[in-house]
Amino acid sequence: MTRNKSIRKEDLSEKREYHTQSTGIFFKVKNLLYKQNSPYQKIEVFENEYFGNVLLLDDLVQTTERDEFFYHEMLVHPSLITHPDPLDLLIIGGGDGGVLKETLKYHIKNVCLVEIDPHVIEVSKKYFPWLSPCLKDQRTELVIADGKKFIEKIDRKFDIILIDSSDPVGPSASLHQKRFYEKLKNCLNNEGIVVAQVGSPLYNSELIREKSASLKELYKIVSFYVIPVPTYPGGSWCFVYLSDNAHPLSIKRDPPLGLNYFNLETHRSAFSLPNFLKEKSE
Amino acid sequence: MTRNKSIRKEDLSEKREYHTQSTGIFFKVKNLLYKQNSPYQKIEVFENEYFGNVLLLDDLVQTTERDEFFYHEMLVHPSLITHPDPLDLLIIGGGDGGVLKETLKYHIKNVCLVEIDPHVIEVSKKYFPWLSPCLKDQRTELVIADGKKFIEKIDRKFDIILIDSSDPVGPSASLHQKRFYEKLKNCLNNEGIVVAQVGSPLYNSELIREKSASLKELYKIVSFYVIPVPTYPGGSWCFVYLSDNAHPLSIKRDPPLGLNYFNLETHRSAFSLPNFLKEKSE
Repeated sequence: MTRNKSIRKEDLSEKREYHTQSTGIFFKVKNLLYKQNSPYQKIEVFENEYFGNVLLLDDLVQTTERDEFFYHEMLVHPSLITHPDPLDLLIIGGGDGGVLKETLKYHIKNVCLVEIDPHVIEVSKKYFPWLSPCLKDQRTELVIADGKKFIEKIDRKFDIILIDSSDPVGPSASLHQKRFYEKLKNCLNNEGIVVAQVGSPLYNSELIREKSASLKELYKIVSFYVIPVPTYPGGSWCFVYLSDNAHPLSIKRDPPLGLNYFNLETHRSAFSLPNFLKEKSE
Repeated sequence: MTRNKSIRKEDLSEKREYHTQSTGIFFKVKNLLYKQNSPYQKIEVFENEYFGNVLLLDDLVQTTERDEFFYHEMLVHPSLITHPDPLDLLIIGGGDGGVLKETLKYHIKNVCLVEIDPHVIEVSKKYFPWLSPCLKDQRTELVIADGKKFIEKIDRKFDIILIDSSDPVGPSASLHQKRFYEKLKNCLNNEGIVVAQVGSPLYNSELIREKSASLKELYKIVSFYVIPVPTYPGGSWCFVYLSDNAHPLSIKRDPPLGLNYFNLETHRSAFSLPNFLKEKSE
């Protein structure tokens, strides 16, 4: 997730994430469940009365048990319902398993999850109930590697690539660069789709403008979409859908049953941008 | 605005609003501009580096200079573009003037603003730049009165009634009851539309379910819609559009130019509800 500078006050009964220098979200900590520095980042999990278990990486909220479905459903389903025949999938990042969980709801052949930090996988297996069953699924292929190096080396193509990166500073920095999106194209089938999280439409609108310009040099279809994510800065989050052939509003199949957020109407709606963002993304 | 219990920590350098018992938003206070108890409520205005001037009533964020347009545009424009000929308008609450400002962008004849607390008007005139010009507009009729008593007494009908109430506890409590919505119908022209703010789709979903059931006994068309409001609990807010004749997706005119959020696409999209809310509002 793309975030502004974060400063955490060392109060054990409370965690806070700054969204700007002067505003942010706070959580009362019911139980601090885990706190360790991996070679890549600071990993923390705590329990909050309302949101359940919350995962922080370098002090930024990544996911919570209560509201994970907003982000994970909306990162996965838009491409899965618009690709003509999605069989081979790649997830870069996403060690908490929320994106993986949503992809496995389709009749796919294989999903390769490339996570740089094995500690995120281990911690998430313990504290987020959906991850372990997903890792046991025969279609799941787990690779511990730097996503950028992985796509530079492999000689494989995917139907859908989902970028569930963290901040553009820290271990995910290279996943936000134009060169990375250029390399991704080599790993994408003809009808392929890339979806990536981009940032807050309110706080990162300048970044969205820059990304829009550079991605349009690489992909014929560059469509931004926005959905609510209660625990992310500003309560909304922006994603980008990239393809040369698939169109985000050309729907090929129904979504799976039992989703909490996603349906065909919210899918179409998410691509309707407010005026202030339209100007930035055109 | 409908909110859960709010507890404010008395730290002069910071204001916080609890959204649940264990989570919420915090703002660094650059300048505390106003703090007084009126006969109705505690009124505070402070300056925040990012959001500019912020109005709190009984510790709950009502509006900020930076993000006011999300809420005010989306409370006003959906009815104004779908009514066949909106001439006479009524706003109940809304003493900060944000809703009034948006209504005056149309060729209306008269807009009557009924605010219970004259102190909110006085404070907002000083700290929110849009209010004073709106009050000077010849079409504006300002009434200081209890909205509930006002609609019980008057013998007038309106084309559009906009309910910009605060919490269901405190001075706005009666504006959330079924009896109030029943009385409103007597003040509504045949083609009339009522729009009211309802609450957070995440935190108040049970309230939305109850409201949906009771409003359907009164109005033929009961359509909920959701939009982002960065400084409100959960970052999204729910509204309800009520009418016996006008339909929210039957658009009669273009919105005014120069809006920051609203356009015909975001209008239609707002009525597409996520699965978890659809179940509550059906």
